[in-house]
Amino acid sequence: MKSEISFDYKNTLSSAVGFEGLDATHLNTRAALEAVRTLQRRAAAGKLGFAELPNDRATLKAVIEFAEKMRPAIDVVLLIGIGGSALGAHALDLAVRGPRPLQTDSAGRRRTKRSMPMLVVLDNIDPGTMAAALEKFNPRRTAACVITKSGSTAETMATFLIVHEWLQAALGKRTRERIVAITDPQEGDLLAIANKERYQLFFIPRNVGGRFSVLSAAGLVPAALVGLDVRKLLRGAADANALCWQESLEANPALASAIVHHALDTTKDKKIEVVFAYSSYLWGAAYWYCQLWAESLGKEIDRKGRKVEAGQTPVPALGVTDQHSQLQLYMEGPRDKMITFWTAERSRAEVRIPRAFSEYDSCKYLGGRKLSELFRAERIATEAALTQAGRPNCRWTLPWLDEYTLGAFLQMLEFQTAFAGELYNLDAFDQPGVELAKTLTYSLMGRQGYQQYARRLRVS
Amino acid sequence: MKSEISFDYKNTLSSAVGFEGLDATHLNTRAALEAVRTLQRRAAAGKLGFAELPNDRATLKAVIEFAEKMRPAIDVVLLIGIGGSALGAHALDLAVRGPRPLQTDSAGRRRTKRSMPMLVVLDNIDPGTMAAALEKFNPRRTAACVITKSGSTAETMATFLIVHEWLQAALGKRTRERIVAITDPQEGDLLAIANKERYQLFFIPRNVGGRFSVLSAAGLVPAALVGLDVRKLLRGAADANALCWQESLEANPALASAIVHHALDTTKDKKIEVVFAYSSYLWGAAYWYCQLWAESLGKEIDRKGRKVEAGQTPVPALGVTDQHSQLQLYMEGPRDKMITFWTAERSRAEVRIPRAFSEYDSCKYLGGRKLSELFRAERIATEAALTQAGRPNCRWTLPWLDEYTLGAFLQMLEFQTAFAGELYNLDAFDQPGVELAKTLTYSLMGRQGYQQYARRLRVS
Repeated sequence: MKSEISFDYKNTLSSAVGFEGLDATHLNTRAALEAVRTLQRRAAAGKLGFAELPNDRATLKAVIEFAEKMRPAIDVVLLIGIGGSALGAHALDLAVRGPRPLQTDSAGRRRTKRSMPMLVVLDNIDPGTMAAALEKFNPRRTAACVITKSGSTAETMATFLIVHEWLQAALGKRTRERIVAITDPQEGDLLAIANKERYQLFFIPRNVGGRFSVLSAAGLVPAALVGLDVRKLLRGAADANALCWQESLEANPALASAIVHHALDTTKDKKIEVVFAYSSYLWGAAYWYCQLWAESLGKEIDRKGRKVEAGQTPVPALGVTDQHSQLQLYMEGPRDKMITFWTAERSRAEVRIPRAFSEYDSCKYLGGRKLSELFRAERIATEAALTQAGRPNCRWTLPWLDEYTLGAFLQMLEFQTAFAGELYNLDAFDQPGVELAKTLTYSLMGRQGYQQYARRLRVS
Repeated sequence: MKSEISFDYKNTLSSAVGFEGLDATHLNTRAALEAVRTLQRRAAAGKLGFAELPNDRATLKAVIEFAEKMRPAIDVVLLIGIGGSALGAHALDLAVRGPRPLQTDSAGRRRTKRSMPMLVVLDNIDPGTMAAALEKFNPRRTAACVITKSGSTAETMATFLIVHEWLQAALGKRTRERIVAITDPQEGDLLAIANKERYQLFFIPRNVGGRFSVLSAAGLVPAALVGLDVRKLLRGAADANALCWQESLEANPALASAIVHHALDTTKDKKIEVVFAYSSYLWGAAYWYCQLWAESLGKEIDRKGRKVEAGQTPVPALGVTDQHSQLQLYMEGPRDKMITFWTAERSRAEVRIPRAFSEYDSCKYLGGRKLSELFRAERIATEAALTQAGRPNCRWTLPWLDEYTLGAFLQMLEFQTAFAGELYNLDAFDQPGVELAKTLTYSLMGRQGYQQYARRLRVS
């Protein structure tokens, strides 16, 4: 890889944290090798869709062409989608442009010639924020990106109906030019509607699930619309692919991470993984990962049909902020956690702390230093303190944050998750546990064919 | 209380969730009564500062006067503080004005005569966002609200030095008019600096810790600056106080909640509390609560000096969004969780789902319904599904969301936390576990008197 992303797990070892840590016998390299080979076979059989996404040049080209044509006409991209259809695009936007209201137009903080559209994710269906969005934005300068793999997600279709009407009132027949649909290539209501209305259409390949779809059109289209360099994104992911097929822990950080997570969960009872992102730019990616990890591995039944009730609970934390919120618990509370630090070696910008008020102790040692020195010292101190307290922790280090490293990192985390599915011996690609709540929602809303369910559970 | 806030725990009982649930023997009402009385004694001795805050009329008046004078001169309030000095103000702003970029000026979504300043929390010291803030905002239209109880927090002082220089370059001698300091009334560097520079000063009472300070000047000043009705906030909290001193579970929802949380943790091993906020407006409050709960109860040692390593791990979740991210894990994963729903009965606004595309199954049942109906159905369905799966869950219901109900709710959660401290028999008001990381940070930064620590732990 052009840029080195590394995974360091020395603070998960017994040599660092004593009894709570792993030693050589816990790191099952035979199982790791088996996991790589099983996934290689699945990939060869065309069943590991996410691994193929970085090579889809045709979609990349079509997305870029579409985005460049659309972009001058809009100020806002409304992303209408939820879960895997929203978290990836949000993660990319935040990682490159930063959190609101401090967004810039690119990772370099260069000013672009015209400012880029803003991405607004309408995933939640809170009526308050929905009304505020319709009031705040100008429909004549807005594009809607409707994303649902199944083509029928309740929240997505409801929001689509609302936004569609709002656009139509302003744009009339030209509404269709401002809607892009991203869905299954073969079936579903959104596909049918998009074909009938002649919306621009992109597809999520059939062998790619929602939470593994960030590098499909589901992530690429919104990212390209708001000006991100999607070519670099896929280039990073393609380079990561090459590493992820390596058969040794040393050469394959995604594999090492999977083994360490699995071992800490199953041999040291670390049922919680804290994702401690030391970067305001990685906060969206932390949320994206929390879905990936929780929904892939949180399973009642393994592949042999045994009841396992597996899955670490991921908890997003932001460094340094959460040192002043959650660290007390991580240091002294139950020993049910592993902590994974995420850090970027190079900051997005540099700020010097002025020498002022140096007659005060609390200012003197800060004056003249770079803010990045303090930021880094806090992360290193927190790692050392947790290690000292016998709390296993590991670290992903990115060299810096741009589309290339992001594409590589997200792809590695998807491989990590797929490897972990093999180690737990469960299906990392389904989500049977969410069906009951969906069915009950349909029932409460009176959808045809579902009426009896709520009655049976006496829900109202 | 004028507005009824209720706590419903029937889905934590064995009658609803079977073996994973509580029955009468688990609800230790004698311990609950004891907790109320102990806290009453502490309050009478002047040691329960947060309970007195709603009655501090003098501070309220001074804050309102100050804010009304300052407000016309500014567009931005930079909150310089971290942890308990930032989370409360952020929670209030988000609950009343909504999440960015969909903020409105008040809970009623009425337009105010001039638009209110925006609150920007500079808690994290990420150099990228810091640089973006300095570039984006106009120092001539900015006020800085510097908040630290100790008067020396590293992140806060570093940010203060940076923002101070930035203001000074634009405002010169008038810089002092735009800085307000909120700190301990008797000691600390910020107090000394503020006195010397003649900044406007407000105090956090000595018997109020950071995470219990939202209704002190630490929360009131930023809230008032951005136009929130801080009178209503304190009125709500005062009304909540009256309930929180009741001696029965029926009359005192904070007490009932404390007992239920404690019992689920200690008798049913629910080491994780998911805070499932079904409102985009309560997302900041969820984060505020996660600090309150984690830092208060995450303790190694109880009051008798026994090693307990106590504390539930709080996890914020957003409804309906996280149904498409975390629900799979909550339904099928380890039985180590309780789920607490937060909901508001009345939505901030109402949006009708249009009747369109009704020839498609996935649109037909939605057309003509209110969005709030779908929002509510999803929450009810999720509660029912979790209950069906034997996963204990409870619910806080607020009638609606404005300053009054927020003040009441946050105060109840503080009482809940204080009661829980009694039930666990530990000190809910200290945070000894964060000292090591602070010391190591100072050491790495070369602060006088700290040099040896990092060397000793071989940290660099």
